[in-house]
Amino acid sequence: MNSTNNTVSLETLTSLCKRRGFVFQSSEIYGGINGFWDYGPLGIQLKNNIRDEWWKAMVECPPLGPDGDPLQIVGLDSSIIQNPQTWVASGHVGGFSDPMVDCKATKNRYRADQCWVVAFESSEAGEEGHHLRLEVAVEADAKEVAIETAREKLSKKEKKSLGDNPAAVAYTQMDLPDGWPRLSPATQENTLTEPREFNLMFETYVGAIKNDESKAYLRPETAQGIFLNYKNVVDTSRVKVPFGIAQIGKAFRNEVTPRNFIFRSREFEQMEMEWFCHPDESQKWFNFWKEERMKWWESLGIEPENLRFRDHDADELAHYSNACVDVEYRYPFTAPDFGELEGIAHRGCFDLTQHQEASRQKLEYLEAETGNRYLPNVIEPASGLTRAVLVILCEAYREEWVPKDGVEGGPIAAEPGQPTPEGYESRVVMKFLPKLAPVKVAVFPLLKNRPELVVKAREIYYMLRPKWTTFYDQAGAIGRRYRRQDEVGTPYCVTVDFDSLQDDTVTIRDRDTMEQVRVPINELETVLAERLG
Amino acid sequence: MNSTNNTVSLETLTSLCKRRGFVFQSSEIYGGINGFWDYGPLGIQLKNNIRDEWWKAMVECPPLGPDGDPLQIVGLDSSIIQNPQTWVASGHVGGFSDPMVDCKATKNRYRADQCWVVAFESSEAGEEGHHLRLEVAVEADAKEVAIETAREKLSKKEKKSLGDNPAAVAYTQMDLPDGWPRLSPATQENTLTEPREFNLMFETYVGAIKNDESKAYLRPETAQGIFLNYKNVVDTSRVKVPFGIAQIGKAFRNEVTPRNFIFRSREFEQMEMEWFCHPDESQKWFNFWKEERMKWWESLGIEPENLRFRDHDADELAHYSNACVDVEYRYPFTAPDFGELEGIAHRGCFDLTQHQEASRQKLEYLEAETGNRYLPNVIEPASGLTRAVLVILCEAYREEWVPKDGVEGGPIAAEPGQPTPEGYESRVVMKFLPKLAPVKVAVFPLLKNRPELVVKAREIYYMLRPKWTTFYDQAGAIGRRYRRQDEVGTPYCVTVDFDSLQDDTVTIRDRDTMEQVRVPINELETVLAERLG
Repeated sequence: MNSTNNTVSLETLTSLCKRRGFVFQSSEIYGGINGFWDYGPLGIQLKNNIRDEWWKAMVECPPLGPDGDPLQIVGLDSSIIQNPQTWVASGHVGGFSDPMVDCKATKNRYRADQCWVVAFESSEAGEEGHHLRLEVAVEADAKEVAIETAREKLSKKEKKSLGDNPAAVAYTQMDLPDGWPRLSPATQENTLTEPREFNLMFETYVGAIKNDESKAYLRPETAQGIFLNYKNVVDTSRVKVPFGIAQIGKAFRNEVTPRNFIFRSREFEQMEMEWFCHPDESQKWFNFWKEERMKWWESLGIEPENLRFRDHDADELAHYSNACVDVEYRYPFTAPDFGELEGIAHRGCFDLTQHQEASRQKLEYLEAETGNRYLPNVIEPASGLTRAVLVILCEAYREEWVPKDGVEGGPIAAEPGQPTPEGYESRVVMKFLPKLAPVKVAVFPLLKNRPELVVKAREIYYMLRPKWTTFYDQAGAIGRRYRRQDEVGTPYCVTVDFDSLQDDTVTIRDRDTMEQVRVPINELETVLAERLG
Repeated sequence: MNSTNNTVSLETLTSLCKRRGFVFQSSEIYGGINGFWDYGPLGIQLKNNIRDEWWKAMVECPPLGPDGDPLQIVGLDSSIIQNPQTWVASGHVGGFSDPMVDCKATKNRYRADQCWVVAFESSEAGEEGHHLRLEVAVEADAKEVAIETAREKLSKKEKKSLGDNPAAVAYTQMDLPDGWPRLSPATQENTLTEPREFNLMFETYVGAIKNDESKAYLRPETAQGIFLNYKNVVDTSRVKVPFGIAQIGKAFRNEVTPRNFIFRSREFEQMEMEWFCHPDESQKWFNFWKEERMKWWESLGIEPENLRFRDHDADELAHYSNACVDVEYRYPFTAPDFGELEGIAHRGCFDLTQHQEASRQKLEYLEAETGNRYLPNVIEPASGLTRAVLVILCEAYREEWVPKDGVEGGPIAAEPGQPTPEGYESRVVMKFLPKLAPVKVAVFPLLKNRPELVVKAREIYYMLRPKWTTFYDQAGAIGRRYRRQDEVGTPYCVTVDFDSLQDDTVTIRDRDTMEQVRVPINELETVLAERLG
């Protein structure tokens, strides 16, 4: 693969996703709902393929350990709504929050670290004080944006007083200098409260009565469901430390500012594995899983140059974490920089300690050989399945120039901003690895109004679809049907033409090279099996 | 299979499920949370296998239609939290509710149709009126239980006044005679409100502000997410009416009385397919899907005698439904009667009409050939994935008598209540079809303290696990290891013994017949592939 991938804009990708049925805005006919997305016919197939790859790599066929021994990892599916004490013990009720300010006049609420006050210094000699303005920026680090926006909004009169290009400073509501008014974006007056912590967990009530006792939460991560079942698994599954418990499932975070398409949504899917090991061996396993996880991402066809590790500094570690490294990806919206894709955290024995204390259940592990009891340490590779979908989409996207009929040669990478060369036309192609492609094979009759072609093409479709996800299409010119399959990333197209009726052969057309080869129908399954791997 | 299955009690099954890691009570270390369950290492594999069978039968390889044409069904995964207008239009905000009464004194809340007033007639001649008592029973139809419980609670003094066996009547709070006091179970006084409808949808708030505008719901069914995306799918997926959209996912209902293990839980998983067709053909498709769905359940190994259809009477049809038939199963807690497993509903064009009106988006289908526009009718086969897990567990459960060493013959069905015959011992075996079994193959070295056996057994384990879910176990006597695998339903056990070291053969032991055959290791994969299908 070439690496033009991270140049695709999020707008282009979002539009392709909608047009081809990968990802739709949730509840679109009602104007949507911010931070929620639906996965369409192709999106669910892609997501399922990634899900299955992870499950295979974790549960069904985990890697050999550093000593060459087979690892033991079992699966789990815990409920989204759990006993609320879970989230007290885990620290989420107390600490999983964003700082917010409320406008006392309008009851509006804002993220304190995204709510800026911009002050302009008067250029007139001798004048004291500042000229204050309020700007709400989307990101916590959008200081320059806030200043620029405020500057553009200055009236003629203000400019006259301040000068054309007055010096500016900006503070969020988190670090406002003493004595400055807390200007509300709604009223432009001093009507904001002090910053308060706003919990990111969605709340609900279980049972017929709404009160503090019935309050529950939608899980903000799948991990705690694993810790709660750690003892059940030890008692019932014949596992011995070291072992892992893996889970894939939905999680919910009431993000104040969901953004970047499916990168940060309020409802998302996680893939988390908790690896329970002896404290003395935890560093070894941390290193092991760090390397294994990078290998796995590369096995999905992601260019190594678009992936990197980033160690967390001591001061950015979560309260439960002894060490953490992120696998980062070069997203379109971070390029040339990188953003989080997976975190591999050394959680020590924080979670089991917390749940042991809060539940008063003994969670120590009894080592049969030595009689020793201890709380295992935990190494956690945690990633987002829905975020993985975004990465695979970004990585697969290509714009290419392809030779028109009669021109020699194969497709070449399009150069951004350049016109299509003479004799070429452009195409969009999603270069998914075959194992991830939502559709593996498309089957076409050359013409739809020739029943003998249609009958034969359908026979082939019936033959293939029990083995691979197969798509049948008879409408439109054959060239347009190929392009459509390119755009959804189908690796192979099989076409039934008039020769097929004579000699029982068909053409197989390769998505990437666009080359066509003729294959006898009775060898088709074998040839496709070889190519699809 | 024999049909002893529906004699297993729910207690026995729940206990096996916990002991072997199929299903755990959610948040058990915190005392659980009523109506929520977690799927353990074996439960998640079983659930995934059923999920994959459904997805294959619906999306990847749907049946041929009544005319022999291939059906078009595409997948979808919509979000759990949707725009709340969805549930207004669908009728859930207005009508998806249970009747409740509140105690004004204690703020307790009860289901009005499960809250009984029992009245005893005085046996003393000439005395007027009733002697009222309040009983709360678990089920709406537990009238006799309520009366019996009330009778047992009569004091000596009351008995003296009423006589030893006074005549009794009972009414729920739904049909209380005029003028009777609404006795509260908490106060035994007239402190209950009139019955009011309590909505079964879980509520939450999206965004930083809690008010009516930010109120949202956890979806009580996956179906509406399909209707919301119907137009997106038509516009992007090259489907033509008739076609289907299928979805598997979590749904939530704040049941007042969750019960019967995973049969009725508050968080569950649905498998729903909406089949969009021309109104004139809807009855044909209703009949088609009715038959197809029954075939599918039978393909999972469920005894036909434990399955039946039940047509809904006109007066029990939901407001949106023109016709409905249930596939019912003989559950342990309904036997010899049946309970709901799947509903196949003729929804007419109710949902699309509602959403078209509420969203003001045109949802009509344009028939390309004729230029006609119409709202398709919908046939909906809807079942519970988690309920299917329960059915497969019930159906697989067997208690058998198996001959001890030296006794001829194979296993025979145990007769309930009878002692184990001489020369036999009992076993529990889960007779899952191989395609549903959580573990397909177990691999054992005969002894764990002989490294040459262990090494060879592990080699075989590594060889098999990329193809099938394979379990390695070296601890305990070989007979106990077989029994453990019987109890989790593993179809085949492969044992490496001392002969294996000489001639590279192993034994394959069959779960159902308990017969063992010797197979060369280099033929093992082929033999297992044949047997596992």
